[in-house]
Amino acid sequence: MVQSVERQQRCLLCLDCMLTSMQPFGIHVPPLYMVAQKIVIHYLELSKSYSTPNTNTNSNNVKNILSFHEVSPAAERLRYILSEDDDMPTPTLFTEMDTLQREGDELEWKESARWVKFEEKVEEGGERWSKPHVSTLSLHSLFELRTCLQTGTVLLDLDGYSLPQIVDDIIERQIEEGMISPDLREKISFVLLRKHRHQTKKPIHRSLADIGKSSSSTSESPNLSMNDIADTPSTDQLKNKFMKKIPRDAEASNVLVGEVDFLNKPFVAFVRLAQATTLGGLTEVPVPTRFLFILLGPQGKAKSYNEIGRAIATLMVDDLFSDVAYKARDREDLIAGIDEFLDEVIVLPPGEWDPKIRIEPPKKVPSADKRKSVFSLNELGQMNGTAGGGGGLAEDEEMPVQHELGEELAFTGRFCGGLYLDIKRKLPWFPSDFYEGFHIQSISAVLFIYLGCITNAITFGGLLGDATDNYQGVMESFLGTALAGSVFCFFGGQPLIILSSTGPILIFEKLLFEFSKNNSIDYMELRLWIGMHSCLQCFILVATDASYIIKYMTRFTEEGFSSLISFIFISDAIKKMVGAFKYYPINTDFKPDYVTTYKCECLAPDPTLDWSQLSKKECVKYGGSLVGKSCKYVPDLALMSFILFFGTYSMTVSLKKFKFSRYFPTKLRKLISDFSIFMSIMTFVGLDMLMGLKTPKLIVPTEFKPTRPDRGWLVMPFGKNPWWVYLASFVPALLVTILIFMDQQISAVIVNRKENKLKKGCGYHLDLFWVGVLMATCSFLGLPWYVAATVISIAHIESLKMESESSAPGEQPQFLGVREQRMTGILVFVLTGVSIFLAPVLKFIPMPVLYGVFLYMGVASLSGIQFWDRIKLYMMPSKHQPDFTYLRHVPLRRVHLFTLIQITCLAVLWVLKSTFLAIIFPVMILGLMVVRKMLDMVFSQHDLAWLDDLLPEKEKKKKDDDKKKGKEKEKEKKKPKPDDSEEED
Amino acid sequence: MVQSVERQQRCLLCLDCMLTSMQPFGIHVPPLYMVAQKIVIHYLELSKSYSTPNTNTNSNNVKNILSFHEVSPAAERLRYILSEDDDMPTPTLFTEMDTLQREGDELEWKESARWVKFEEKVEEGGERWSKPHVSTLSLHSLFELRTCLQTGTVLLDLDGYSLPQIVDDIIERQIEEGMISPDLREKISFVLLRKHRHQTKKPIHRSLADIGKSSSSTSESPNLSMNDIADTPSTDQLKNKFMKKIPRDAEASNVLVGEVDFLNKPFVAFVRLAQATTLGGLTEVPVPTRFLFILLGPQGKAKSYNEIGRAIATLMVDDLFSDVAYKARDREDLIAGIDEFLDEVIVLPPGEWDPKIRIEPPKKVPSADKRKSVFSLNELGQMNGTAGGGGGLAEDEEMPVQHELGEELAFTGRFCGGLYLDIKRKLPWFPSDFYEGFHIQSISAVLFIYLGCITNAITFGGLLGDATDNYQGVMESFLGTALAGSVFCFFGGQPLIILSSTGPILIFEKLLFEFSKNNSIDYMELRLWIGMHSCLQCFILVATDASYIIKYMTRFTEEGFSSLISFIFISDAIKKMVGAFKYYPINTDFKPDYVTTYKCECLAPDPTLDWSQLSKKECVKYGGSLVGKSCKYVPDLALMSFILFFGTYSMTVSLKKFKFSRYFPTKLRKLISDFSIFMSIMTFVGLDMLMGLKTPKLIVPTEFKPTRPDRGWLVMPFGKNPWWVYLASFVPALLVTILIFMDQQISAVIVNRKENKLKKGCGYHLDLFWVGVLMATCSFLGLPWYVAATVISIAHIESLKMESESSAPGEQPQFLGVREQRMTGILVFVLTGVSIFLAPVLKFIPMPVLYGVFLYMGVASLSGIQFWDRIKLYMMPSKHQPDFTYLRHVPLRRVHLFTLIQITCLAVLWVLKSTFLAIIFPVMILGLMVVRKMLDMVFSQHDLAWLDDLLPEKEKKKKDDDKKKGKEKEKEKKKPKPDDSEEED
Repeated sequence: MVQSVERQQRCLLCLDCMLTSMQPFGIHVPPLYMVAQKIVIHYLELSKSYSTPNTNTNSNNVKNILSFHEVSPAAERLRYILSEDDDMPTPTLFTEMDTLQREGDELEWKESARWVKFEEKVEEGGERWSKPHVSTLSLHSLFELRTCLQTGTVLLDLDGYSLPQIVDDIIERQIEEGMISPDLREKISFVLLRKHRHQTKKPIHRSLADIGKSSSSTSESPNLSMNDIADTPSTDQLKNKFMKKIPRDAEASNVLVGEVDFLNKPFVAFVRLAQATTLGGLTEVPVPTRFLFILLGPQGKAKSYNEIGRAIATLMVDDLFSDVAYKARDREDLIAGIDEFLDEVIVLPPGEWDPKIRIEPPKKVPSADKRKSVFSLNELGQMNGTAGGGGGLAEDEEMPVQHELGEELAFTGRFCGGLYLDIKRKLPWFPSDFYEGFHIQSISAVLFIYLGCITNAITFGGLLGDATDNYQGVMESFLGTALAGSVFCFFGGQPLIILSSTGPILIFEKLLFEFSKNNSIDYMELRLWIGMHSCLQCFILVATDASYIIKYMTRFTEEGFSSLISFIFISDAIKKMVGAFKYYPINTDFKPDYVTTYKCECLAPDPTLDWSQLSKKECVKYGGSLVGKSCKYVPDLALMSFILFFGTYSMTVSLKKFKFSRYFPTKLRKLISDFSIFMSIMTFVGLDMLMGLKTPKLIVPTEFKPTRPDRGWLVMPFGKNPWWVYLASFVPALLVTILIFMDQQISAVIVNRKENKLKKGCGYHLDLFWVGVLMATCSFLGLPWYVAATVISIAHIESLKMESESSAPGEQPQFLGVREQRMTGILVFVLTGVSIFLAPVLKFIPMPVLYGVFLYMGVASLSGIQFWDRIKLYMMPSKHQPDFTYLRHVPLRRVHLFTLIQITCLAVLWVLKSTFLAIIFPVMILGLMVVRKMLDMVFSQHDLAWLDDLLPEKEKKKKDDDKKKGKEKEKEKKKPKPDDSEEED
Repeated sequence: MVQSVERQQRCLLCLDCMLTSMQPFGIHVPPLYMVAQKIVIHYLELSKSYSTPNTNTNSNNVKNILSFHEVSPAAERLRYILSEDDDMPTPTLFTEMDTLQREGDELEWKESARWVKFEEKVEEGGERWSKPHVSTLSLHSLFELRTCLQTGTVLLDLDGYSLPQIVDDIIERQIEEGMISPDLREKISFVLLRKHRHQTKKPIHRSLADIGKSSSSTSESPNLSMNDIADTPSTDQLKNKFMKKIPRDAEASNVLVGEVDFLNKPFVAFVRLAQATTLGGLTEVPVPTRFLFILLGPQGKAKSYNEIGRAIATLMVDDLFSDVAYKARDREDLIAGIDEFLDEVIVLPPGEWDPKIRIEPPKKVPSADKRKSVFSLNELGQMNGTAGGGGGLAEDEEMPVQHELGEELAFTGRFCGGLYLDIKRKLPWFPSDFYEGFHIQSISAVLFIYLGCITNAITFGGLLGDATDNYQGVMESFLGTALAGSVFCFFGGQPLIILSSTGPILIFEKLLFEFSKNNSIDYMELRLWIGMHSCLQCFILVATDASYIIKYMTRFTEEGFSSLISFIFISDAIKKMVGAFKYYPINTDFKPDYVTTYKCECLAPDPTLDWSQLSKKECVKYGGSLVGKSCKYVPDLALMSFILFFGTYSMTVSLKKFKFSRYFPTKLRKLISDFSIFMSIMTFVGLDMLMGLKTPKLIVPTEFKPTRPDRGWLVMPFGKNPWWVYLASFVPALLVTILIFMDQQISAVIVNRKENKLKKGCGYHLDLFWVGVLMATCSFLGLPWYVAATVISIAHIESLKMESESSAPGEQPQFLGVREQRMTGILVFVLTGVSIFLAPVLKFIPMPVLYGVFLYMGVASLSGIQFWDRIKLYMMPSKHQPDFTYLRHVPLRRVHLFTLIQITCLAVLWVLKSTFLAIIFPVMILGLMVVRKMLDMVFSQHDLAWLDDLLPEKEKKKKDDDKKKGKEKEKEKKKPKPDDSEEED
């Protein structure tokens, strides 16, 4: 009779009791309350000491309500059980919930939901799995579950080998404790041993056979596990593909809920088996069962039982609670686990959220370790009340993690100290650098980068040929790229870096060639000496650990540099495209009807000759003149080039995005996305072949000989220039060295960025060493000089990114890092070298297609740069701006100001680049670093920490400051606080 | 001393007490529990009768725990207060939370968050408002808030006219009740009357002036309201643009939380003013304050106070709780409100969600009315435990709402009964049909549809001219479109329908013309008689309410028809485009260098003549022959046409999507999206003009005369054909009538679809009446016949859709309906008529641009069709499929089967359409209806209800069944259930 207080009322009134006694601030309590409270404490003690009644209030425990450091008994319990034998991690739990259903006259258990980490529900009508979603529970079901565990049978470490035996044990216990009458034994046992029907995939295309059937669901062949009592997994279980999604060490927890007509009060049992055991067809996958939760109840409340089932299932997959469940010593430990769970739940107000919405799993959830770690610390009280996320937390977030260049750039002070450390660091990885390259992803990366490299080689080759009167032409460019690239990728410190010709070097060569021509100095010999000097200077920089100054390069400088390079890529691609319209002018006055008036005749100087059969070139060559309306024009090619260019670019962009579409299985989509560039190139090469127009094609040299017939493959150091030139070349060499140093190391910093999660470390000194060696080698062979190319290197990294296979359904794949190896780089350059023999194939590739690839590279390397994100902010009203962390911490106008300064710097650099000053371009990057230094005066260190990185000395200072503050705070905390709450009583 | 039980412990143990007493199923309770429970009930009574101590257990109340229909005391209270004077709705509440902060030596209240419906937080560092998000709370803060309300001062209906007076009243009350000592009066009053600083927008571009300042936030001019005590709104308040987002009748609730050093326990007050009063600068906007919640507490727990503040603020904007707050009679009512709120909250497990994630406001939230309505029903208990959304609810969802064609298609059985009702229905709307057309959106709609219409008029005009030897040409097409369209839009039943020439009519005319030519019958006269007969037949159909058979047309038929029309649009657009490549062949063998060999000469038949100056046409005309490699080719035009075509299409698609981007303010984006077609057309017309190529342009007749000089503007009914022709034309007229009837009414059904939320009703009979009248008129004038054009009509609807201005920040705009009026339609057709004079402007529009618009129209009308969505499902692995409701209820293979049948039907129709059978095309739609009827044998009514609509008779049957079931269930419910729980005690 006592328990029959109407349920609702009790629930709400008892909230009352609970809350009143919480008294967070020691609010004044009227006398009446005090009486009530005494009774409550009385009761609390009673319920705490469940088995040993004790009616005295424990007044020792009744103190310090203002202190943070007290631990609740629930947490105390958890801390105790979680701390023991922490060396053995508990297995992951897979939870399956089956509900009792009546199919015709048969009772059976039907799978209704499952959890690996998130909930997947069986869509009753749709006969399929819902998408994984966050389990939204009601407070009610959690409280009801708690009561169930408090009053039901809890059997921990039961020796169970088969379901019938376990069921027997449970019923026996309940009868022993007088919870059920013995005559129910048969009935309960019968229900619990009914067959289990799992929601496994059915072939979709059997559907054609179903046409005749009007009602769909009942007549399907039921997927019953007939061997529920067998202890070997059934074929259905073994065939289940879902097994892939469950970690190998996983164990199962089975939740069985249902309503029956013979019970008049619920039958509840929570069982933990001593050994995880496969219990026949209980689980849809052949995973041994460790936990069993059974709830049978009187009819009419199926929904309520379902919700309780969902609640325990959600708890079982909760990292913290599952630990508790594994280690619980008794019922109270489990209850403590629920209490701790309740303490951390997040509550959504009913008016602001529709419970019918299935919440997609978040990108990241708080790690379980963090939640567990609380129990090994002393400051447990701190945790409470922090769940109120969205609002309350932001203020507490610390400063952003500073980028750390790590020991690689430490100044050792020893001769070649840095180089030695580099080699020491990289050597152990050397074997894995090769075998880790064998992966399907490498193929697409190689193709992508290869195409970028040969395009670059051809472009720069052509330009260099123009600039140096073919002393260095396309042939030299190919050979040099192949040689320098493969050597660097084989021996370099960071094999992900791709060497290439770069703009500044081109301009330097141009100026140098003009200088030598005007002063009658032999260009190749002069160049050789400059190369040697520069190589020596590089060695000095390596030996003195000079690369450590890169530490002063912050995001501001890096992003400025890489954006500039990206802009150059983009503008070059567009310039080339526009060039096609100049090279193939379109006759815009063409009137189709007057086609008879368009011709182009070759008039010979001597009117008696008939030169009409001569081609345009021949005509001009022999001194003829071209007369006619159509001479100046080339039809179709310009427009076709544009279609190829723009088509390649936009198809690549679309295919890249295809990864995020809903169509096709994830793997196929990823493949399409990985090979997007290759597929676009193939498509538009195909289109070009189909049209058959004479669009400009990629021309690869086919014979292995220097472009200029009057030079050999080796440049001699002496003989052509006066002796002082050998010494004087030290000066231009210095310029080249600075140029190479900056270009190389900035690219390296960008590649080695923390965001890329590189694991094998880098080697700035080793890199520079090899660049120096290659300088000298190339100079001897009369090949162009090479240095790290930012955009292609970034593209290389991008194409080698690894993501975790999403394990639990709904879990987002995490970026794991980059496939760090030397194979792709080496292959790219070997292929580049071999390209001379691939000419018959490569000649089908139209140049506009390659310009499209260039454009894509430039645009792609812009995305993901914070600077670019900030530029976009200018065009967004603040309420639509994305939730970038720095926007939460730095006022928008400061962000805009910072961006504006950056834009101005880049604009200045862009203008300088377009003049002859381009040669000191990398030196100007030093200018960026100076600007950054000055920003310290404009922006607070707080703002800079969010928008940029702190400069090394500032960072140190900051850390010291923080430490001081921390100490002060600690001191404050230690001050004993007066226990004022007692005064009022 | 009693209250100093350590807080954590109490909280968790008391959970224990609460939960134990909940006992949802009457689980067996061991004797010890019974003792404990008695004490608890004791306590419960105590705390319930707060002011009148009563220690007897009320055993009358202690019954029926298995019954659903008992109401908790909290709910009882709510029901009581919510039911009184329900006629006056409570105002919307705007909540502002200010926290006490120290700025230098000054204390001030700083706004930290605000709520209209969702939470917006001040980003401390960013000095700006966060995006509106769902408030995620912790259970703790809600419980603590409850305690605060239980123990703090609650002043309801206080007469307050200024803040100082209100503060005085609160403090006075607390001193009276002995909650604070009188010497704190000054200090508390001082703190509470500090200035309020609001987070108002600051000009962003002042930032340049800030360059000198290193620390950003402190030196900003503080936006202090100096007149906190004044009762007139300050200029800052009045200028605040945020006011727009707050409903006009809104009142404010202010939450003030802070920590102070002079208190040793919290000072809590909840105040409701008798009259909403503007309390100086308390609120950021000039909204009068109704509620005030104050929480001051000892130092060290600011975060906790903040969370409590957020909890009360969230409660205040909860529709249900704000009602309670307005109507509460005492403290207990408020507590009951919180309890009811707690009862409905949604809980997210801590391991599956990161509280730091700000949850975007959902598209739709459960309506407050639904939540409130519970309190006027008797079945309150039912509500509990239903919050566990994602999982438990799906099974309970009812069948989808069936589409109802309503009374418009009821069979009246009276002569012209339907027509009479149509006129009766539409007449009252007639004036508003005009003045509601004056809206900026109409302009874009007119432009869009106008361009579609003239493109159609020109295309069909050209084709008709070909088919009828120019008896009906472009001129007739323009005139007829203008006449028929404007008359229909002016008088028709559904003025959103756009009339146009359609394919079947075109084919009919073609066959008819051939027939008359072969049989020497006068075409125009025959056509006139057919038109008259057909008009008469239409009248008969109108008079007999024949349109009611449209009721048998379900989604299956509608979507089949409209997809087919869309496919025709798409294929026509592409065909036209491909045609350009045939019309302007590209010389793919062109070698730029051999330009000298390409020419095209006109050779006269007589070799002595020099015809080289003749144009191609002239040459051919005079019998010359064209000789030369370039004669067959037209350069550039085909490719340029392709660029224009594809460019227009893809730019339109991108601009349409631009509405969902983050850039630019919402209004501008909407404008861009609305005018996307116009902007794309202008862009590519501009590009075309820039290139100056002779692409095919839109040619509009400029003179007002029939295309064929030998016909006049009026066709005479007699004289040219034998008399029997007048009668025999009845037979072809029957075909035309069926054709028109089906075409017209299916389009009308599609336009009148429930999804479009039309409010002014439709008029199927009236529509058909006017189509009949226009048939006759056009026949007399020798103009083409017109009937509703599905795709353009859908485009018309799309361009006139209205969305609600999003009111509360974060609330999603809702689709409200369509701007139903006659103005846009009439204007479109007036413009079409006037186009004859617009020729000088229109002649700049290249045809490929218009084909691009066609393609867009076709593709756009496909999107949003369920059939199309289902086709896409074929390519998606089931786990990636969108969460369409029907997928939750119908097995995927049945969905696929349904789609497959539909595809097959369309394929058959497509093939038929391509043969001469096209003429009976609309009759074939009847075939679709037959197929649909047969589907009843393949699919269950349940599946069909989700995938399609039920046929009228089935629907009726279904309803009857449901009623029966409902009754049975009720009977079951009424059976008294044995109160088994008592047996065990």
